[in-house]
Amino acid sequence: MLTLSDFTCLIEKEIKGLQFSDSPKDLYEPIKYIMHLGGKRIRPALTLMSAALFTDEYTDALPAALAIEIFHNFTLIHDDIMDKATVRRGKATVHKIWNENTAILSGDATLILAYQYLAQLTEPHFYQAIKAFNKLALEVCEGQQLDMNFEGKYKVTIAEYIEMIRLKTSVLLAGSMQIGAIIGGADKQVQKEIYSLGENLGMAFQLQDDYLDVYGDTAKFGKAKGGDIVNNKKTYLLISALNSDNKVLLNELNIWLSKSGFTLVEKINAVKAIYDELGVGDEVQLAAIGYINNAIEILGTLDIPAERKKPLEDLMFQLMYRDK
Amino acid sequence: MLTLSDFTCLIEKEIKGLQFSDSPKDLYEPIKYIMHLGGKRIRPALTLMSAALFTDEYTDALPAALAIEIFHNFTLIHDDIMDKATVRRGKATVHKIWNENTAILSGDATLILAYQYLAQLTEPHFYQAIKAFNKLALEVCEGQQLDMNFEGKYKVTIAEYIEMIRLKTSVLLAGSMQIGAIIGGADKQVQKEIYSLGENLGMAFQLQDDYLDVYGDTAKFGKAKGGDIVNNKKTYLLISALNSDNKVLLNELNIWLSKSGFTLVEKINAVKAIYDELGVGDEVQLAAIGYINNAIEILGTLDIPAERKKPLEDLMFQLMYRDK
Repeated sequence: MLTLSDFTCLIEKEIKGLQFSDSPKDLYEPIKYIMHLGGKRIRPALTLMSAALFTDEYTDALPAALAIEIFHNFTLIHDDIMDKATVRRGKATVHKIWNENTAILSGDATLILAYQYLAQLTEPHFYQAIKAFNKLALEVCEGQQLDMNFEGKYKVTIAEYIEMIRLKTSVLLAGSMQIGAIIGGADKQVQKEIYSLGENLGMAFQLQDDYLDVYGDTAKFGKAKGGDIVNNKKTYLLISALNSDNKVLLNELNIWLSKSGFTLVEKINAVKAIYDELGVGDEVQLAAIGYINNAIEILGTLDIPAERKKPLEDLMFQLMYRDK
Repeated sequence: MLTLSDFTCLIEKEIKGLQFSDSPKDLYEPIKYIMHLGGKRIRPALTLMSAALFTDEYTDALPAALAIEIFHNFTLIHDDIMDKATVRRGKATVHKIWNENTAILSGDATLILAYQYLAQLTEPHFYQAIKAFNKLALEVCEGQQLDMNFEGKYKVTIAEYIEMIRLKTSVLLAGSMQIGAIIGGADKQVQKEIYSLGENLGMAFQLQDDYLDVYGDTAKFGKAKGGDIVNNKKTYLLISALNSDNKVLLNELNIWLSKSGFTLVEKINAVKAIYDELGVGDEVQLAAIGYINNAIEILGTLDIPAERKKPLEDLMFQLMYRDK
């Protein structure tokens, strides 16, 4: 019987073995750098695990799994430029080490490489897989645009935020699983259910990320804890707090959002105290649990032997009970 | 019998009819803007004309032709950021009208849209077409990286320059034609010849562009004439001049490259005078003619009725004897 680590080890080994061109150096070095920065490799693992729900030949999905991980890293390179982020997974971002132009162009090449790996799939699955891939790729861009739009907007509703993270984060997990199901030979209806499972998992995953920025374990968290607070990043917690009708706390929060001349720790502690009082930490966790329960329910209804579902269940459990 | 304008009108009509999503506005408006900025539409016309060499069903190549033009516009959006260009086809560039982040992200979405159009092709041609497309797309990025590397490099050889423009410009024209040939049903050997034809045409086209920046008709040229001179852009002319053994002129040229406190017209006229004395304008035209002759020769050897070749010959002629 396959275990979760069979999938993650296989993915890690495949990523380690990726061969990129050497020339021009400035184009390919950043790609090697970011691909080997680590990360949880959740998305490609989901592709393999999803394929393995339906077939023993789940390694047929490896090109797609790699394409998904390469695509994810493309988004990281470009998002880090747009967000002016200097740290990614505890290391300097591509545009910091090289420069913005190199990061733009290497990112472009990374996106094209994703398609190159995807095109290693063969029929009858390739055509369906690339259609799904194109759709998710465009939606991820739409999500990133909405996320950027939120920066300049004071009032964002929870519904708008949910739609943004659905596009920016969830459709990639959903599409990763859908493509696995396509390659596994699942029929259209089952593909849809798998997509929905991944979408719910993605929502839970992102909301948990929002929560962990404030309440996670600093030592284990890849980025500085409280980074979202420092950057006034519109997460579920901040948006929920800004939609609060507690005028006193709202006023206090607004002061911290515009104030300068404080230490970062002061701001993080002050905003966290407001979040505690408003209970937005519990709220986001409840929302995340709602989504993960949906995902578990969908998995439960699938007519697949329990032992085949086990690795995926383990991953879902790990994602929800992580502290980083 | 089909004429060149049948192809260019069809492409223009198809581009006018392109439907993009409306939301998020900031993501799709820049794409609509650049796609409707005009341009010669050479690449998609080449795809259709190449298909029409082999089949009457050349409109089957329309999704690929559009994918090629959309891809080309993706490169323009991102290249303009990297080059800090403010004007494109006589209008403001995307990152000037919006901002760099929007240009990065819209560019990404444009690249994905190119793949979405390409995926409208059907088998048996789709798989071959996407392989060719992936290859050319990655090579275009490599070419752009080499081009950027040249900026920081004093001495570039003509051979290095030729390889750079082969990657940055020629492989796109070559691939446009190759994909047309794939869809037209040409066999592998003929596909290769068509690719080579396109590659030679692309070289001639780029060298002619270098020439026209200095010697073209200002009124008709989309960008400011002499722009390459003003920006110390390493074109064939500048590289050839910098490789000259005429120490007096070389010295004078180096002064203009580093000098400030002149009007743009002074610099353009001075550098042009040096080019005239060194004869680099004639040299680049000779090189361009060499490539176009190769292209004509390849077309001549193809076992295809003359009337089918006519539109392509007309385009080649137009490209070489244009003044903009």
